[in-house]
Amino acid sequence: MPELRLNLVTREWVVIARERAKKPEDFKKAGYIKKEIEPFIDTCPFCPGNESKTLGEIFRISAGKDWKVRVVPNRFPVFSAAGERLRKTDGLKRMVSGVGAHEVIIETPLHNMTTALLPVEQTTDIIRTYKNRFISLHQDPRIEHVIIFKNHGEGAGVSVEHPHSQVIAVPIIPIQFRDRFESAAHFFDDTGECLMCMTIRKEKEEGTRVILDTEHFLTFIPYAALSPFHTWIFPKRHSASFSDITDLEIKDLANTLKTILSKLYYGLDNPDFNYVLRSHRPRDCDMEYFHWYISIVPRLSKEAGFELGSGMYINPSIPEENARFLREVKV
Amino acid sequence: MPELRLNLVTREWVVIARERAKKPEDFKKAGYIKKEIEPFIDTCPFCPGNESKTLGEIFRISAGKDWKVRVVPNRFPVFSAAGERLRKTDGLKRMVSGVGAHEVIIETPLHNMTTALLPVEQTTDIIRTYKNRFISLHQDPRIEHVIIFKNHGEGAGVSVEHPHSQVIAVPIIPIQFRDRFESAAHFFDDTGECLMCMTIRKEKEEGTRVILDTEHFLTFIPYAALSPFHTWIFPKRHSASFSDITDLEIKDLANTLKTILSKLYYGLDNPDFNYVLRSHRPRDCDMEYFHWYISIVPRLSKEAGFELGSGMYINPSIPEENARFLREVKV
Repeated sequence: MPELRLNLVTREWVVIARERAKKPEDFKKAGYIKKEIEPFIDTCPFCPGNESKTLGEIFRISAGKDWKVRVVPNRFPVFSAAGERLRKTDGLKRMVSGVGAHEVIIETPLHNMTTALLPVEQTTDIIRTYKNRFISLHQDPRIEHVIIFKNHGEGAGVSVEHPHSQVIAVPIIPIQFRDRFESAAHFFDDTGECLMCMTIRKEKEEGTRVILDTEHFLTFIPYAALSPFHTWIFPKRHSASFSDITDLEIKDLANTLKTILSKLYYGLDNPDFNYVLRSHRPRDCDMEYFHWYISIVPRLSKEAGFELGSGMYINPSIPEENARFLREVKV
Repeated sequence: MPELRLNLVTREWVVIARERAKKPEDFKKAGYIKKEIEPFIDTCPFCPGNESKTLGEIFRISAGKDWKVRVVPNRFPVFSAAGERLRKTDGLKRMVSGVGAHEVIIETPLHNMTTALLPVEQTTDIIRTYKNRFISLHQDPRIEHVIIFKNHGEGAGVSVEHPHSQVIAVPIIPIQFRDRFESAAHFFDDTGECLMCMTIRKEKEEGTRVILDTEHFLTFIPYAALSPFHTWIFPKRHSASFSDITDLEIKDLANTLKTILSKLYYGLDNPDFNYVLRSHRPRDCDMEYFHWYISIVPRLSKEAGFELGSGMYINPSIPEENARFLREVKV
C-alpha cells in the first residue's frame, strides 16, 4: 500500500510509492561516463585569466595575488540592480518593479572541480562568501529576501560548466516563504516550540533518516522527502537567519556539505542536483519559530501533470532506505 | 526593467524578465521534425485489438461494437483502489494510507492522434468521460479530491505515446488547493465577489491577454503567467465544481480546448505540455468563492534552484505578446 506523508515544514503531501519504489542503487546515473574536463578553458568567462570577461567584481577571497572565490554580477540578470522599488495596483493587477540583485559566486579557479572534490577549506571560503553576500545584500532597503542556490548539472538548469552558485535578491517576500513561516508560527502557538528544533530532535531520536550528525548540524532525509535523496541540513543551534552563523559553524557546515555531496557523487555517480539556502532576513534573526536550513534536491524524478495540478509529489523511493544507503557510502 | 507580477489566484510571484524575454515565435521547437507514427501499433496496450493487455475496463463510450474512449486502471497505480483510509499520527509524523484511484483515459483508438488533430466530437466525448469519472470517483467516501490531467510529449512526463489523460483520486485535500481556496475566500470576504469571476470580467475588458472568447468560456494567458504560453480556460458561468458542467458547455469546452491546443500545435510546432482541471468536489458545487478551470502549461522553460528555493517563477516572455501571437495563429 502506498503511503501519503505530510511534510509539516513545507506543508506538502508526498506519496511514498512503495510498490513502484526503486532501490537506492537504481538511481545511479544510467550510462554515466566520467567526462575528462580540462582545469582551464580558454573561452570560459569564469576561468582565471578571463577576469575581464565578467562585469565589475563585487567580492573576492584572495590567496596572494590570485583569487580563491570571486563574486560578479550575472551577465543576464533576472533583477535589475538600479532603479526604485515601485508598486503598482491596477484592478486585479499587482506589480512591483524588478529591482534587486543577481550575482554569480565563482566557487573555484578550477574549471573541472565540484564540491565533492574540492578541499574542505575551499568550501569554507564559499560559505564565508555566502554569508558576506547574504548580509551585504540585505543592507539594501529595497531588498526583502535573498535566495542563495546552486544548480549542478544540465538537468538542474546549468548553462555555464565552471562551478558556481548564484545569489538572487528580491524586492518582495515570496508567498511560499511566508506560508511556511506562518505555519511555523502556528506550530509555535500550539506547542511553544520551534517546529524545526523539534524536527531535529525527533529525527535524531529516531535515527533512521539521519545521514550525518556533526557537532553543529544534523543532516537527514525528511520523513516526507519530496523526491529521491531530497536532503536537509539543519543547524542544531536555533536561529532564524543564516546571517549569524559563526566561523566554527561555517567550518562544520563546509565539512557537512562536502561529505553529503561526496556521498551523492560517489554513491549515485554524480547526479544533477540543486541546493538552496532557506533563511529569514538578518533583522529577524531572533525569531523563535523559524530556523534556517539548506535543502538539497537531486534531480532524479520528473514532475508532470499530477504534481503541477496538485502541489503534491510522488516519491518513487523510500526515505529510510535512501538514508541508510547514503550513511554507508564511504567518502 | 523586469517586472514582478503577483498571480492573485495562485498567490505566486512571477518575474516577467523583459530584457531576457524571447519573442513568441522563438519558442518554436528547435529542429522539430514531424515523426511519422502509425495509427495502430501491435505492441501498444491502448490500441484496439489489445484490450486484453489492460486491466478490467472501467468505462467506455462506444460507436457500434467499437469504442471511442476507454477508461482503464493504471497498470502502475500511484494509489491503491482497495483498502481503508487510515490516518496515523506519531510525533511529528503524519501518515494517511494511499487509498484512492489512478485511471487512464484512452482518448482515441488512433495511436497517432493528438487533441489538435482529433475531430471536436471526439474531444466532446473525452470531456464527457472526464465528467463521468470525476462524479463517479467522488462518490467513494474515502476520496477527498480528484485531479484530471494530461501529459503530452516526453518533456511533460509521457511514457506511453498513445494519446491518453489520467485521473488520480486522493484521500486528502492537497494543501496547495486548500491555500488557493482560502485566499479566494478572503477575497470574497473583502469584496463580496468571486475572485475568478472578477478576473474573467477584467481580462475580457482589457482584452490584451485574451486568446479566445466563446459563449461559455474565456481563454487567456494570465497576467502573471508562470511560464511562456501558460493558459487558463475559465467557464463564464460561476461554479465551484466541474461536476455540474452542462452538455452545451461540454461542447463549447471541447471546441475551446481543440482550438487552443491547435494554436499551440501549429503556432509552436507541437510543444510538450501538461494540462490540468482544477475543481472543487461535487458537493461544494454551490460555493460562491471558488471557480473551476483548466490550466495549460507548455513545457517551454526549465525550473532550477531559484524556482525551487522561492516558489517564484521566471517567465522569459511577455504574456501580452504571447496572447497576441496565439490569437493570430490560424487553425
